Amino acid sequence: MWQIAESDLPAISIGAAILGTGGGGNPYLGMLRVRELLRRGRRIRVIDPEDLHDSDLLVVSGAMGSPTVSYEKLARGDEEAEAVRALERHLGRRFTAVAPLEMGGGNSMAALCVGALVDLPVVNGDGMGRAFPELQMITYLIYGGTPSPSAVADDKGNRVVIDEVVDARWLERIARAVTIEVGGHAGLATAVMDGAHCKASIIPRTLELAHRIGTAVLRARDEKADPVDAMLAVCGGRRYLRGKIVDVERRLARGFARGRVELVGFGDDSGRTVVIDFQNENLVIWEDGEATVTVPDLITIVTSDRGDPVTTELLRYGYRVDVLVLPCPEQLKTERALAVVGPRAFGYDVEYRPFA
Amino acid sequence: MWQIAESDLPAISIGAAILGTGGGGNPYLGMLRVRELLRRGRRIRVIDPEDLHDSDLLVVSGAMGSPTVSYEKLARGDEEAEAVRALERHLGRRFTAVAPLEMGGGNSMAALCVGALVDLPVVNGDGMGRAFPELQMITYLIYGGTPSPSAVADDKGNRVVIDEVVDARWLERIARAVTIEVGGHAGLATAVMDGAHCKASIIPRTLELAHRIGTAVLRARDEKADPVDAMLAVCGGRRYLRGKIVDVERRLARGFARGRVELVGFGDDSGRTVVIDFQNENLVIWEDGEATVTVPDLITIVTSDRGDPVTTELLRYGYRVDVLVLPCPEQLKTERALAVVGPRAFGYDVEYRPFA
Repeated sequence: MWQIAESDLPAISIGAAILGTGGGGNPYLGMLRVRELLRRGRRIRVIDPEDLHDSDLLVVSGAMGSPTVSYEKLARGDEEAEAVRALERHLGRRFTAVAPLEMGGGNSMAALCVGALVDLPVVNGDGMGRAFPELQMITYLIYGGTPSPSAVADDKGNRVVIDEVVDARWLERIARAVTIEVGGHAGLATAVMDGAHCKASIIPRTLELAHRIGTAVLRARDEKADPVDAMLAVCGGRRYLRGKIVDVERRLARGFARGRVELVGFGDDSGRTVVIDFQNENLVIWEDGEATVTVPDLITIVTSDRGDPVTTELLRYGYRVDVLVLPCPEQLKTERALAVVGPRAFGYDVEYRPFA
Repeated sequence: MWQIAESDLPAISIGAAILGTGGGGNPYLGMLRVRELLRRGRRIRVIDPEDLHDSDLLVVSGAMGSPTVSYEKLARGDEEAEAVRALERHLGRRFTAVAPLEMGGGNSMAALCVGALVDLPVVNGDGMGRAFPELQMITYLIYGGTPSPSAVADDKGNRVVIDEVVDARWLERIARAVTIEVGGHAGLATAVMDGAHCKASIIPRTLELAHRIGTAVLRARDEKADPVDAMLAVCGGRRYLRGKIVDVERRLARGFARGRVELVGFGDDSGRTVVIDFQNENLVIWEDGEATVTVPDLITIVTSDRGDPVTTELLRYGYRVDVLVLPCPEQLKTERALAVVGPRAFGYDVEYRPFA
């Protein structure tokens, strides 16, 4: 068991945002919230998936909403815990552990908050190994978990239990509609499962991976080494382009931050122009009219000097950044997973070809 | 106890649509649905509010959505019953009776359907004595009932329990968002209460009133008498204008049918021009720049020849109609009720002055 210390938080926050491929919400606010809970004496225990008992009762926890909103509207911080509690009341049962929804900006911190507030162990792993914009895209559901009942809780005291849904896409639609109505951010509890299903479907050890990536970045900064080289050494993958942001189009549509960012290369990359489409998360790299990298591969933008992850709503003209492509977990590359998280699931008429 | 017979349905349907002030959805489809249930041997028992025991457990039932949708999309017909069942499962208790949400087009029939499908007695009364577009506008809630938990069920198998809400307006917002997402029509179960609260807050005997109004209209048609005079003799109120529809503006906004209809008078009413604003239901009559009649008074449009109620989505250029103003129940005229259903609650900067 790993008991999270305050000193772990900056590394997890950076690493999770790098895995988060531009999405998952505001990493800084999430970190402050968890830090405050630890300072007040709450504990956060992280357990590995193999330590789960098959009979454990797990709930998946995370924040739902546009990451843009997470920068513009302060959350209370207990929305995710309230969603978990609403689901416990509805089921008349207590959960024995909480599994993170996704790695990403603030969303890795959301599950840690629940661990602290409800005093439940948090499983070292998540349902995406990255961030994705929609709920049906978690491996817990792709590999046979149940999308209902789920619960959504807001900052005002509204609690909605989505008791039965036709399928995971309907969970996404209904939970999204409720989230938008309550202001664009809500806590979500979903994919109730036993320990056996969690072990079988989780992307394992991603909290630890985030911690290792973040630690490498922080150490490189201290040692005046290249933080981007340091993170790539940990998570594999490579630098796709070093360049400057020359154009950003961004709009809030159906509760999502959608848009595209255009970059031109520097140095060795001079003369190259690259466009990245995003929906909360970076989805596709376009170069010379071709989709060169697509979901589910991880496309992450970090500042070239410090290796700071740049979430999609922070993209600005003039930023000097590195575009990184990181390999995605094997669980996202199966035919079953690609039907849900591959480029066609996002409306792109291209095949997924692993970049790594 | 009144056991509804197939022969009662046409009268209830017409009378409820006249009380429905243009809203409440498609009365014809609702009637067909109830008729089919009776023909299959289901029973519908109607009990008077005074026959309730204080310890009874009641649920309020009705359809939610734009009446426009009720003309364009066939409902399954069991959405309301499914919402009631979802709420029973959530509470772990069985209801002992069902109270109608509102009188209006199809919505009086919705509670009768639940009575037949769940085999619960239906209370002779409703929460509006008419129809209104939003959920916080029912007397069960205005006079202290609880807006949560409530349940929404659609035609596809999605069931949402709104477990806790800040207030009745948040129930309306969240239930509306879910209803829009699932296609603009859903069954609703809300305002769980005991028999004592139902007796104290219901507008009593409106199912019976609808039946009497409809019976008077049908009899007048048979006897070649004036059906409009006949209905006014039953429910009070008066003919405001006899005229022709010369303009209709209608749009679907946030799941509501919103718009205005303009009429010019005939005969004794020659030279008069009247505009009626509506949001699902008719809200305000404007004449000579003045709001002459407003909610909560009932503004109903019927065809001049047959006394057929014209719901807001059936308003058409050229229809020859009578605009009627019917008195509203006393329960809607209190300060507490006017704050929720008076003209200001709909955004009109005018005082309510009873027309009768």
